[in-house]
Amino acid sequence: MSETDLLQDRLEQMRGDVELALCGALDFGDVKVAISERLIDAMRYSLLGSGKRLRPLFVLFGNILCGGNYTDAIPAACSVEMVHAYSLVHDDLPAMDDDDLRRGRLTCHKRFDEATAILVGDALLALAFEELGKLPSLEIVGICCKELANAAGATGLVGGQMDDVANEKNLNVKTEKASIDLLEQIHLRKTGALIRVALRLGAIIAKATKEQINALDEYGKNFGLAFQITDDLLDELGNEKTVGKRLHKDKEMNKWTYPALLGIKKSQDEAKKYVNNAINALNIFDNNITEKKILIKITKDLIGREK
Amino acid sequence: MSETDLLQDRLEQMRGDVELALCGALDFGDVKVAISERLIDAMRYSLLGSGKRLRPLFVLFGNILCGGNYTDAIPAACSVEMVHAYSLVHDDLPAMDDDDLRRGRLTCHKRFDEATAILVGDALLALAFEELGKLPSLEIVGICCKELANAAGATGLVGGQMDDVANEKNLNVKTEKASIDLLEQIHLRKTGALIRVALRLGAIIAKATKEQINALDEYGKNFGLAFQITDDLLDELGNEKTVGKRLHKDKEMNKWTYPALLGIKKSQDEAKKYVNNAINALNIFDNNITEKKILIKITKDLIGREK
Repeated sequence: MSETDLLQDRLEQMRGDVELALCGALDFGDVKVAISERLIDAMRYSLLGSGKRLRPLFVLFGNILCGGNYTDAIPAACSVEMVHAYSLVHDDLPAMDDDDLRRGRLTCHKRFDEATAILVGDALLALAFEELGKLPSLEIVGICCKELANAAGATGLVGGQMDDVANEKNLNVKTEKASIDLLEQIHLRKTGALIRVALRLGAIIAKATKEQINALDEYGKNFGLAFQITDDLLDELGNEKTVGKRLHKDKEMNKWTYPALLGIKKSQDEAKKYVNNAINALNIFDNNITEKKILIKITKDLIGREK
Repeated sequence: MSETDLLQDRLEQMRGDVELALCGALDFGDVKVAISERLIDAMRYSLLGSGKRLRPLFVLFGNILCGGNYTDAIPAACSVEMVHAYSLVHDDLPAMDDDDLRRGRLTCHKRFDEATAILVGDALLALAFEELGKLPSLEIVGICCKELANAAGATGLVGGQMDDVANEKNLNVKTEKASIDLLEQIHLRKTGALIRVALRLGAIIAKATKEQINALDEYGKNFGLAFQITDDLLDELGNEKTVGKRLHKDKEMNKWTYPALLGIKKSQDEAKKYVNNAINALNIFDNNITEKKILIKITKDLIGREK
């Protein structure tokens, strides 16, 4: 087996463990009452069976790089994916981005209905915090609760999304001038906060040192920006079938994006810069750790991504 | 000063402390970036300046009755009120109950817009868990995180709301026959879960015994049902100006309610039964505790409530 195959195998194994745990978390067993099946079906539809599982894998990577046994960190991996899934369900709503397709399937409010989609998002967000309760000690649950809530809330994910929507719909009283600085501020929260907290949670569960947490945080910050720029580029240059959602929407809606502000070529250069920064941030970790090699590969693969 | 005045004074003092803490929790200080003001304004609008603060007061009552110093429990009181406020903002949305008025003021999506209201709800739910982080120890944060998430989620508040909406909008595949049992099941979650967890959190923070927690839980369960029945009665018999929202909607929408299923008189009798059960559940607590007297008064006042 070549090294590339070995790395791919290991990644698939980790992804499989996440998938299994996500399924388990949505098995409500005895407490399920007949009339609630619609909610459970819609939660399963929105959380399971698709998605790259990047954020939960980052929890596991953060954990392993800091010496953890990754099984301890799996509940946190599920939590982060639940927060991600909830945010997609709400972002797709008609009052927000109004999207009909996500990952090649109907969005939750199209497959079910708007009321169900609002409640599915709410339920997944609450479930994320319930899932943290499965972590090894109450002290770790407490720390992770604070970290995840901060990343998910008004100064993190929701704040970034609010700014993004406000700028798209012209909801601001003051007219802000589009600038790379402002765009970066939005994305550090909208995309970056959850990626960073994924790595941090993994590290915290492994009882990492401050130096290790800071290194992973720096990696996450740079990865998040590279991810967002390549996402913007995909919207301009990608293939709708491969990506699995409607493209060229940013341009139609006059959205602030990296390509719109910098042009394609300069955006690609920026993405490469952040990819390099991210990889350099991992210098303190041993090069022989298999998972570090996988992480570097995932990071490099952002350049030229097709979905 | 008469005893009634003394009790009222104490209640106002407790309510004032909750109000102050809620204001403090929405002061983001340095992290606030200019472009996010809309979100913060809408969060303040939805959380501050109105509401009976029943649920946060229950946190404090639970805490004091179990021997706690209630200041320790104030962050949990804020958390529970944030969960309550988020659920109202989302319930009022056009895709859900489609209400224009709440507590005599425009609902969040009417005062701002739908996208903002969705995000305000999300942000308040996340903030509830961040607020728990202010509790006295990480262990207590961990326990409260699990309890609150369970009460807020698919098997609690959101589950009850889903069943309520599904029954109203005929979203179920099977046709469920309206029955008091099913109605009770919905309300035990839609209203009861948050009231019960409020009392439980207060008790847990006071390091209560199992017996004390169970007694408060039994109180909360019965109070919740009495509260819901009197709420249904208000919708039939109340004054729109005093209540501060549109009434007689239940009937228009063919909603399952206690008066619809049992008639007015029998609903009133049921409410009285639950009020008595609730008060009896408090028997294990010393009658001389001022806060027990206030709690009994609040419970009795459900009969004949005007808002």
